[in-house]
Amino acid sequence: MNDAPLPFNRRLDEAMEKTGSLLCVGLDPRVALLEEPVEDFCRRIIDATWEAAVAFKPNAAFFEALGLDGHQRLATVLGHCPPGRIMVLDAKRGDIGSTAEAYAHAAFGVLGADAVTVSPYLGGDSVAPFLADAAHGAFLLCHTSNPGAADLQHLEIEGRPLYLHLAALARGWNAQGNLGLVVGATYPEALERVRAAAPELPFLVPGIGAQGGDLEASVRAGLDALGRGLLISSSREIIFAADPRAAALRTRDAIDRARG
Amino acid sequence: MNDAPLPFNRRLDEAMEKTGSLLCVGLDPRVALLEEPVEDFCRRIIDATWEAAVAFKPNAAFFEALGLDGHQRLATVLGHCPPGRIMVLDAKRGDIGSTAEAYAHAAFGVLGADAVTVSPYLGGDSVAPFLADAAHGAFLLCHTSNPGAADLQHLEIEGRPLYLHLAALARGWNAQGNLGLVVGATYPEALERVRAAAPELPFLVPGIGAQGGDLEASVRAGLDALGRGLLISSSREIIFAADPRAAALRTRDAIDRARG
Repeated sequence: MNDAPLPFNRRLDEAMEKTGSLLCVGLDPRVALLEEPVEDFCRRIIDATWEAAVAFKPNAAFFEALGLDGHQRLATVLGHCPPGRIMVLDAKRGDIGSTAEAYAHAAFGVLGADAVTVSPYLGGDSVAPFLADAAHGAFLLCHTSNPGAADLQHLEIEGRPLYLHLAALARGWNAQGNLGLVVGATYPEALERVRAAAPELPFLVPGIGAQGGDLEASVRAGLDALGRGLLISSSREIIFAADPRAAALRTRDAIDRARG
Repeated sequence: MNDAPLPFNRRLDEAMEKTGSLLCVGLDPRVALLEEPVEDFCRRIIDATWEAAVAFKPNAAFFEALGLDGHQRLATVLGHCPPGRIMVLDAKRGDIGSTAEAYAHAAFGVLGADAVTVSPYLGGDSVAPFLADAAHGAFLLCHTSNPGAADLQHLEIEGRPLYLHLAALARGWNAQGNLGLVVGATYPEALERVRAAAPELPFLVPGIGAQGGDLEASVRAGLDALGRGLLISSSREIIFAADPRAAALRTRDAIDRARG
C-alpha cells in the first residue's frame, strides 16, 4: 500500500465529488464594510456557508492592509477550515528560486493554506517551488477578467494569445498533479479555449456575480471530462448578503443546474 | 510655491545624486544562515553599509516564511531607513482593482516602504493602484535573470520579445513619474535594449554577484542620460560578507568605476 498523501488535484476532485459542490466562497473582507474583527467576520461566513461550498478563498491583500498582524488574522481564518473542504490562499505570489521557496513555505507551512494563487511572469522555475510538495497546490494566473488583461494576456504569440500559450506550458509543469489555472468568468469563450488547451487542470474561476460573469455559460465552458474541475468563486454576493447561507446555497444550486 | 511631495522617481534621482551611489543593498535574510533575530541582523547590516548605499531592498518572502509575525519584523527593518535613503520592498505583488489598492496600502501605509516591486501579468489597471500616490513608487518586473524568463518574457510579439513590449507599455503608465522597471543583470545586452525602450525610467537591477551578472557591462548598458537611473542591487555578497561595510564600499566603488 502506498501511504503517500494524495496529490492536491486529486484531493480537490474528491472534495468536489463528496460535497457535490463546485462553489468556492471568496473571503475578500474589505475592511471599510466590516463592523467586527475581520477574522470573526470570516469565521462567521465560513460557518454559515460551508455546507454549500467545497472551498474558501481568503485574499491576503485585505488582511495585509489591516495592519502588521494581518498574517495572524489570515492564519486564524485558514485554520478554520471545515472538514473535507479546501483552503485556497489568494496571494498571487511569484519570485525566483529560494525566494519562491520561502513564499511557498509561508503559504503552506506558516499560514496553513492547501493551495495558493501564483503569478506566471517569471516562468516555470518560479512556479516549481510551489509544486514541490504534491499535497499542496498552486493556481497559476492564466486569463483574468479585468480590462488590463488585454495588455499582456491577449498578445498574439504565433497565432494564439499569450494566455493559451501559458495554459499549454502549465500542462507541462503539472508533473505532480497539483497545478491549476485561474481563469476569469467574464468571457466564457476564453474559458472554453483554456479548457481545450488544458483538459485535465482544475480551474479557479473568480468573477461570478459582481464581476459580471455569466454563471451558466462559464460552468458549461469550463467543466472537465468528469463534469467537475472547476472552482466557481463568488465573494461579495455571498459574504455581504443579508443571508450569506441562503446566498451560498442559491449559488451552489445555480451551478448545479448549469452542470445539467 | 508648490509644496506637493516630489514624485518618487525624482526623489530617487536626488538621492542618487546626493549620495553619489547607485548601490542597493538587498536584504534577503535566508533564515537558515542567521544566528540572531532577522530584524536585528538587517538593522546591523543597514548600519554597517548605509554610507555606501542609496537604497535597501528587504525581500518580503524571507520575513513571511519566518512566522506569522513576519510583517512586524519587516516593518521594523523598513522603519530603520537612514536619512536620505530609499526603502524598496521586494514583494512582487499584483492583483486587480480594489485588491491591488489593498496591497499598495499594505506596502506604503502599513509596512512603510517607499517603493514596491510589482508583477505585470494582469496589465496596466493592476499596476495603477501602486502609482496612485506619486510620492511612492513601483518597480515593475520586466526582464529577469532566471532560466524561466524564456517561458514568457522572451516570447516574440510582432518581432520583439514580450519584455520589450512591456517596457514600452510601462513608459505609458508612468504619467506620475513614479514607475520603474526590474531588469536582471545577467544579460547586459537585454538591459541595453530595455534602456533604449524606456529611456527615462529608473531600473532596479538585481543579480550583481551571486546571480552571475557582469557589473561593469550592466552599469554601462543601463545608465540613463544623466549617468544615473540605476539601482544596482547586491545581496548575499554584502550581507553575508565577513565585513559587510567593506563589501558595500567595494561594490559602490566598482559601480563608480563602471560609470566612468
